[in-house]
Amino acid sequence: MPLTGTSAQEIAVCLDGLRREVDAIDEQIVRLLAERHARVQNVVALKTACKLPIYHPAREENLISQRRAQAQQAGLDPDHIEELYRSILRQSRVRQTVQTARRGVRPGAKVLIVGGRGKMGRYFGRWFNESGYAVRILEVDDWPRVQALCDGLALALISVPIEVTPAVIAQVGPHLPHGCVLADLTSLKHAAVEAMLAAHAGPVVGLHPLFGPSTSSMDKQLMVMAPGRLSEECQWLIDQMMAWGNVVLPISAREHDDIMNIVQGVRHFATFSFGQFLWRRNIDLARTLEFSSPIYRLELGMVGRLFAQDASLYANIIFASPERRALLKDFVHFVAENESLLEEGNREKFGAEFRQIADWFGPFCEQAMRESTFLIDKLVERF
Amino acid sequence: MPLTGTSAQEIAVCLDGLRREVDAIDEQIVRLLAERHARVQNVVALKTACKLPIYHPAREENLISQRRAQAQQAGLDPDHIEELYRSILRQSRVRQTVQTARRGVRPGAKVLIVGGRGKMGRYFGRWFNESGYAVRILEVDDWPRVQALCDGLALALISVPIEVTPAVIAQVGPHLPHGCVLADLTSLKHAAVEAMLAAHAGPVVGLHPLFGPSTSSMDKQLMVMAPGRLSEECQWLIDQMMAWGNVVLPISAREHDDIMNIVQGVRHFATFSFGQFLWRRNIDLARTLEFSSPIYRLELGMVGRLFAQDASLYANIIFASPERRALLKDFVHFVAENESLLEEGNREKFGAEFRQIADWFGPFCEQAMRESTFLIDKLVERF
Repeated sequence: MPLTGTSAQEIAVCLDGLRREVDAIDEQIVRLLAERHARVQNVVALKTACKLPIYHPAREENLISQRRAQAQQAGLDPDHIEELYRSILRQSRVRQTVQTARRGVRPGAKVLIVGGRGKMGRYFGRWFNESGYAVRILEVDDWPRVQALCDGLALALISVPIEVTPAVIAQVGPHLPHGCVLADLTSLKHAAVEAMLAAHAGPVVGLHPLFGPSTSSMDKQLMVMAPGRLSEECQWLIDQMMAWGNVVLPISAREHDDIMNIVQGVRHFATFSFGQFLWRRNIDLARTLEFSSPIYRLELGMVGRLFAQDASLYANIIFASPERRALLKDFVHFVAENESLLEEGNREKFGAEFRQIADWFGPFCEQAMRESTFLIDKLVERF
Repeated sequence: MPLTGTSAQEIAVCLDGLRREVDAIDEQIVRLLAERHARVQNVVALKTACKLPIYHPAREENLISQRRAQAQQAGLDPDHIEELYRSILRQSRVRQTVQTARRGVRPGAKVLIVGGRGKMGRYFGRWFNESGYAVRILEVDDWPRVQALCDGLALALISVPIEVTPAVIAQVGPHLPHGCVLADLTSLKHAAVEAMLAAHAGPVVGLHPLFGPSTSSMDKQLMVMAPGRLSEECQWLIDQMMAWGNVVLPISAREHDDIMNIVQGVRHFATFSFGQFLWRRNIDLARTLEFSSPIYRLELGMVGRLFAQDASLYANIIFASPERRALLKDFVHFVAENESLLEEGNREKFGAEFRQIADWFGPFCEQAMRESTFLIDKLVERF
């Protein structure tokens, strides 16, 4: 490209040539996006036929990581490529879930919500009702009418506090029609599914919605499913959850409970302990917030969020089962063992352990960094 | 695609094949984006050489129209393609205009960064340099030249690891011109400010940036300032920070340190302990993420974020001072005391304490709930 002594006309010709090259590339990009769309339609068709959930968070993260890595190598800004792909993936999801709406899978079928005046019971009652089901409610004072309430039922959904769940299941089970699906919503599945299998000879499925009754849309909300008995006869209920937008995750009751011991038990206990410490030392929260980064604000926000909620809900979470309490005691012991580290002030030992843990966390660290940075930016933008 | 009678394994193989096709297309797309970027660089080089304006609105609109038309024909949503291309064009503009105004308050003034090849030192060195200051660096092997490096200085900025900060201050102080501002960047201010006051008779100010060297913009970032001596003579430095976009927060060194013991010490130690527990129990992180709500993802993200960073940085934070270690031991004791609560399984006692803490948190709980709900929505939207 000779730049000196070129006329305006020569420059225009040159620019025009470069622009045509860019246009040719852009045309290829859009052609590839169309091809991509066609392929994704095939994936969706296959998933729908096999009743698999459409949305797959792990697959999306994996895809993003690959494109970021490629962008980095190619000298592009990985954040920008991620932004483009988030948009492409979002678009592809929107197209896939538009046709689902609030379709009733078995409109007119009779549904009994046991504990139907609790928060969660009312929430699911509303959804079933809006999808055309005949919703009945069984509350503490309705036991005399239990036989009539159970007549012709397609589903009995147990939505009572976890500590009374097995007893309520045992009480309602014998009244259910043989083909009625018995399901529950508690956050531990092994005991509940066992109780349901013992109380009812028909189809049984354990559910655990990973969202609260304040969630306005069920779109993309996670619903854990622990199979009990006669899965095919429970399938309409699962189809209903998916029609509402839920992502249904099948898992064995045992593995579910192990995971929840960490995800709910240890996590909330750790958060509780942090709040408890701030209270015991009477720390000036407002002052700490003034002098801290958005990340601290975010973490303190998680503590505040816990204490904004119901004490008995968290008592139930912390003391949910003997296994969970044993795990929490384990956690307490590990924390206590760090005392000697603090006493010795041994930075090398701390550093060595830190690096070992970081290795163990592996690529998740980087992903966590990216995700939390995104949120911190949002926090800075907004507050 | 035979869908009836296929096994789960066959479906998985089929899905895998389709996904690999999508991956291959995505790889081509990113490759083309890189080619596009290279071509645009040529256009920019040509325009710069010919002093033509970079941004050309008509050309952009024309390009968007072409891509929309192509999208329409290919059965894609034209609005979505336009959104993607607006983002691609914006990115290309941003890259071209990155070198913008970084106004210097005292351009030409001589600045010495002690520890100028560390991450934070390089970061501030770059900012001072881009704002027109004459930046010098003093590293471990530069001590023989210290006198020459200090000649005519307007500012000596100490950016070395916290454990050697007082010693380095004592060593450099005697060489500074009387009017030179002496400042540091460590995360504990009492010891550092005392050391600076003892080593230098001129203006002294302690700084603590509440952001890391990976922050691309200083806009709205917090900079804590602990006054030392002759504040008016330090003012130009504060003005410079504000010109860069920093929010400068004045506080006494003592109160700052008390706050940081909580905000950095206890918080990071608690996060470390949680990660340590996950590692010791060898928890399957990916599996817990599959079965969890966005809040857990957010909290685990905070843990992953910590371990994505430097071990020695966190060793320095945890073991920063004897006071901090004592506070952390206190925290360990409080956590350990909860063992009896867990042992007894006393829900009432837990509930009573929970409510007491919630009262103490007061209105902050509700604020935390609001803020974190906002962020969780963002998280759901995005991931």
